[in-house]
Amino acid sequence: MKKIDHIGIVVKSIENALNLYKNLLELEITGEEILEDRGLKVAFIKVGDTRIELLEPLHENSEISGFLAKKGEGMHHIAYTVKNVSEMITKAKEFGLKPLSDEPKDGAHNTKVVFLHPKTTNGVLVELVEHK
Amino acid sequence: MKKIDHIGIVVKSIENALNLYKNLLELEITGEEILEDRGLKVAFIKVGDTRIELLEPLHENSEISGFLAKKGEGMHHIAYTVKNVSEMITKAKEFGLKPLSDEPKDGAHNTKVVFLHPKTTNGVLVELVEHK
Repeated sequence: MKKIDHIGIVVKSIENALNLYKNLLELEITGEEILEDRGLKVAFIKVGDTRIELLEPLHENSEISGFLAKKGEGMHHIAYTVKNVSEMITKAKEFGLKPLSDEPKDGAHNTKVVFLHPKTTNGVLVELVEHK
Repeated sequence: MKKIDHIGIVVKSIENALNLYKNLLELEITGEEILEDRGLKVAFIKVGDTRIELLEPLHENSEISGFLAKKGEGMHHIAYTVKNVSEMITKAKEFGLKPLSDEPKDGAHNTKVVFLHPKTTNGVLVELVEHK
């Protein structure tokens, strides 16, 4: 079943962002996690069959600090669920799209993931997610 | 039922963008329209319970030409389905969020819509959509 796995949004403060997602939209926060190795605090918000992933930097050297400094808060990536990330990497190359790695990487919650370079996907950082 | 109605993505060419959405992701294009008054060509792509809305400018004075010149191709807005846009406008103001209009506007396909200013919604242009 093809669907959007999640939409990643970079914020300065998850707590402030909940004014929109929790107070106004009355959505359900399904999980909040500290990812020390990536310098991130993340919160997932369920909406329909997909999720919003809020990404907050823990410090100035986090994975998203460059994005935040250059572009400010806002939409960061769209992740699609796929059956087989390895096959998608091969197929993406055939279509002239540029995977950021030649092999799938381990993602959170027992997933395999790859990102596609936004220059080859009309400015959108695209993540492909395989749930094992 | 709360869900994401669509995710708006600004592209220079819908045809080029289909390399990702149609060729690689094998998603279904559900409609393509010319909106002369907004200077737009739009295509909708079904994915799970939501849709990607690709927005291509018809000319240099289109609704999205400023965005394209300033930020380039990429994610433009996220639209959420709501029951009653008028009530959401009132509620948004109570929470300190800033609707771009005081009354709902007519959207495509018999909808009422309002946008929330991204400065009050963590950098994301948020659209609220009521299907009549």
